[in-house]
Amino acid sequence: MNRIVLAQTDTIAGSIKHNADKIKNNILKAKENNADLIIFPELALMGYPFGDIFIRHESVVKRQLEALEEITALTQNITVLLGFAEPTNDSNKKPFYNSVAVIQNGKIINIVRKRLLPNYGEFNDYRYFEPSEEVSQIFELKGEKHGILVSEDSFNEKTFFKNNSIYKTDPIEELIKQKPDTLINCSCSPSRCGKEYLKNKLFSSIARKYKVNYIYVNQAGYADNLSFDGTSKIYDKNGNLTLRAKTFDEDFVIVDDLKGIVNELPTGMLEEIKINSFSLNYRNDLARTYKSIIFGIREYFKKNGFTKAVLGLSGGLDSSVCAVLLADALGSANVWGISMPSRITSSESKNDAKTLAQNLGINFLEVPLASTIDPMKEMLNSAFEEVKTDKFEKSTTIENLQARLRATILWSVSNEFRQMLPIATSDKSEAYIGYATVNGDMSGGFAPIADVTKTKLFALADYLNEHRYVKNAIPQAILEKPPGAELKINPKTGKTVCAEEENMPYEFLDEIIWFVENKGFGFDELINHTFYYEKKNLLSQEQKEEWINKFFWKSKCAVYKWHIMPPSVVVDMHSINSVEYRQPIISCIY
Amino acid sequence: MNRIVLAQTDTIAGSIKHNADKIKNNILKAKENNADLIIFPELALMGYPFGDIFIRHESVVKRQLEALEEITALTQNITVLLGFAEPTNDSNKKPFYNSVAVIQNGKIINIVRKRLLPNYGEFNDYRYFEPSEEVSQIFELKGEKHGILVSEDSFNEKTFFKNNSIYKTDPIEELIKQKPDTLINCSCSPSRCGKEYLKNKLFSSIARKYKVNYIYVNQAGYADNLSFDGTSKIYDKNGNLTLRAKTFDEDFVIVDDLKGIVNELPTGMLEEIKINSFSLNYRNDLARTYKSIIFGIREYFKKNGFTKAVLGLSGGLDSSVCAVLLADALGSANVWGISMPSRITSSESKNDAKTLAQNLGINFLEVPLASTIDPMKEMLNSAFEEVKTDKFEKSTTIENLQARLRATILWSVSNEFRQMLPIATSDKSEAYIGYATVNGDMSGGFAPIADVTKTKLFALADYLNEHRYVKNAIPQAILEKPPGAELKINPKTGKTVCAEEENMPYEFLDEIIWFVENKGFGFDELINHTFYYEKKNLLSQEQKEEWINKFFWKSKCAVYKWHIMPPSVVVDMHSINSVEYRQPIISCIY
Repeated sequence: MNRIVLAQTDTIAGSIKHNADKIKNNILKAKENNADLIIFPELALMGYPFGDIFIRHESVVKRQLEALEEITALTQNITVLLGFAEPTNDSNKKPFYNSVAVIQNGKIINIVRKRLLPNYGEFNDYRYFEPSEEVSQIFELKGEKHGILVSEDSFNEKTFFKNNSIYKTDPIEELIKQKPDTLINCSCSPSRCGKEYLKNKLFSSIARKYKVNYIYVNQAGYADNLSFDGTSKIYDKNGNLTLRAKTFDEDFVIVDDLKGIVNELPTGMLEEIKINSFSLNYRNDLARTYKSIIFGIREYFKKNGFTKAVLGLSGGLDSSVCAVLLADALGSANVWGISMPSRITSSESKNDAKTLAQNLGINFLEVPLASTIDPMKEMLNSAFEEVKTDKFEKSTTIENLQARLRATILWSVSNEFRQMLPIATSDKSEAYIGYATVNGDMSGGFAPIADVTKTKLFALADYLNEHRYVKNAIPQAILEKPPGAELKINPKTGKTVCAEEENMPYEFLDEIIWFVENKGFGFDELINHTFYYEKKNLLSQEQKEEWINKFFWKSKCAVYKWHIMPPSVVVDMHSINSVEYRQPIISCIY
Repeated sequence: MNRIVLAQTDTIAGSIKHNADKIKNNILKAKENNADLIIFPELALMGYPFGDIFIRHESVVKRQLEALEEITALTQNITVLLGFAEPTNDSNKKPFYNSVAVIQNGKIINIVRKRLLPNYGEFNDYRYFEPSEEVSQIFELKGEKHGILVSEDSFNEKTFFKNNSIYKTDPIEELIKQKPDTLINCSCSPSRCGKEYLKNKLFSSIARKYKVNYIYVNQAGYADNLSFDGTSKIYDKNGNLTLRAKTFDEDFVIVDDLKGIVNELPTGMLEEIKINSFSLNYRNDLARTYKSIIFGIREYFKKNGFTKAVLGLSGGLDSSVCAVLLADALGSANVWGISMPSRITSSESKNDAKTLAQNLGINFLEVPLASTIDPMKEMLNSAFEEVKTDKFEKSTTIENLQARLRATILWSVSNEFRQMLPIATSDKSEAYIGYATVNGDMSGGFAPIADVTKTKLFALADYLNEHRYVKNAIPQAILEKPPGAELKINPKTGKTVCAEEENMPYEFLDEIIWFVENKGFGFDELINHTFYYEKKNLLSQEQKEEWINKFFWKSKCAVYKWHIMPPSVVVDMHSINSVEYRQPIISCIY
């Protein structure tokens, strides 16, 4: 039998030197360990995801091919499976194949080209790649036969997907005819809600059905709003999981006889996450969501040369959860929480912010807003007087001004400290309806929770309080108070206006979002739908209609904000993140 | 012979009611005028560009098909060619065909499906559409035979493109075998540099080669950073242009015997714009660039419910050109120019800004920054003292702070006036190297010149001064002074630092940009390239290397800014606008 290395590497798209050095080091290490075969993820040499860089920048492609030659020279006594972008050199074809080279003793002995090119969601393979029309050929190593699948090639298995596919061919069927002992899947597959459950079922069923071993090697890393979880796997011929590599981290796994270590499996992999029906129970996806975001933050900061983060602590849920995530990703000492109370900020909010910072051990600073907002208000007042506008004090201008001055302080702090990024604390529910201020709370160098809805965020906060090494870091008061921006006072109650008063209950909003994203519902379908909220609360038809109308109107106005959102981590099944979904600002969905 | 109407309509993607009402009105008007045939652009009923909306929102598709039925009922005594997204209803295919329905007397008598699906630049057809595998069928009307091409179907004509194409079939050849008298091309084709010249040559050569009439109907409008110029055309069987509809505007053209009006043709259509080699001579493209941006501003504002704009007037080139464009697009009375001088702003700059505003007749306000920047500086100083950072006054923090407070003022003004958008005045050269402040001068509701390089901007300013109804609106002093942000003083000269000192000469920078965008040049290729600048100036190898290095380093750091750029108008051959080019923030091109 063979000794195999699963090289679960991280890549930087277009940074050929970075990727090639990593690949070379892994090959040398594999040779030192007398491995027969080392397997890299899909497109490991070009790096992924690459946006449009390698179709615009020919020089990147040239360097990739030079590096491939250097790597090829290192393959004495070892076989290397290496994903790269292979030029088709045919003007009648797309510029590249998405290929895996089988390299041995200084020669490329086989090239397997991806047959099924995904072009949905975050995938745009068909923009760059020519689909291979040829059946991939297996290769032999010490008497064992191996068939290679490039990522999506494994996702048209007829029995599992019940023939319900946009692809005509099933590359697995084609390979099986050549009687392989083992199928090897080289992937770049980002982590999304419910995906590991699906992959586990699929890979296991393929191994079992065809009596083959199944090796899955996935990249680990973060780029372009996507966290890649790694979590490479091996299944034996009975479909049993015999190895599961590190999750959300690089790994270098040496395997003999295809047997490795399987640590405790997460519930999200074993228990089905009902991705086809709406639920307010997020339990099975919280650990993964947490890890995916932490990993995204860490990788984004590291790869862009930042080490520290600064965020405004309002004493509300969004900024509190962000603070926890940042502390865990970067280390408490690298996080600065700044409380910037205005005259209408409650003393509870101020105290909650401070307590949170103490619990987390992050740096804390209180900078009252009054000394800067008053002169700005005065100046605007006198300018507006000159041009006769509405009554300034009563308009949204003053609400937004607070948020913008806070952001200006955060950006100034980040400029001053260098290697520090200010954080946008907007959540997904509020981003959907544009309940965030441009150049204010939605501005920043990174937006950790922009793909987490508010109801899921409450669940995540509970999860963090229960499972982190320091329990209950987020004060209970923060979890219990109604969310709100604390930017204006309700003249009737004398208290700050809470968000659900201004918008609608988050439970209701999050259910709308789910059905719009996952089922394509428009106004009519939502009106005819019975919401969870309705089962527990009295809700008039008029109120329901008003909320649904409000959702569509507000989200129409919010599309501009989606276009200028800072980078984030996509964690949900679907999202409004531009890596997956693009809606022109001038357009209409209702 | 037939009486034909070219319905050069504007659309809003997904707004089926808006599109259908427009289509119905056009059909009724055509019937009143006893037309035999009315031709709409590609996808006129769904609207274009649509991003991902109609693959996510099934309800939009449902409403489109209902509207198609209503429109079909209106076609007594007239034939209608209507572009729509036709569901394939086949789970083994992409969800839609990009189709044109031939509708007559209450029935769809023929459907022509797009065969060639562009998937490059701003086009993503293959993400949504199944390419038609069937040869399109011609239809007869009063003894005349018509063949339909859907946009790209016309762009693989073998002779013209010399067999150099990613597409295997030539739909024109297929149609010609059926001996049509006329080819009709239904398009959604955005205006780009050099494109009308190409289309004119192509369509004329097709008509001449095959001895057919050629009708081109293109949409007019703006969405998703693209201006669609309309400019529908008719060519006779000798390839002569017999009609050219309005440019950058909707049109309803009634044509008998395929003969219409051809007004004076622009130089940009007749003289080749050398899109394959770099030139600092922009003359042939200035009129189109101007119209494309004006139209983009006007449509963006109108369709989003805005009527007014506010921008900071620094007395520099960028904000001055923006002010002219806004005044022409929205009317002078709807534009507010605000001068926000700080202590280091020169009196010349202040005066230039004021003169410009007077020349344009726009509203003008001077709001000195000192009263707000001083308290903010004080507050930050005391905060920084507490945490011991660098010397605040000497860092970039204070430069950025000025830009951010200015933007805060503009956003406040726009909030207060309502229906008003603040304007981001960044140009393309500076966007490329990130020479703009986040939440500062690069923030806004619209960025009119974000795809115009600085050298082209100087040419555009000259063009405006020469050709507008009010001559020389931009004071000569603005055109002559070296560009710069006026955010800091050079201690040696005592003057504000100019941009070329900090970065590199704009001529050099713009040539780098051109070769990176159009030829895929990397560091090595640029070092070996002889720049125009070198022919006129002494340039050491060290200096050249430094500038090229600086470009790649700065543009790498700027990618984050590209991701959060406000909407703009793409006017160049290539751009960094996200509608055409996506580069992940974590990636590398050098």
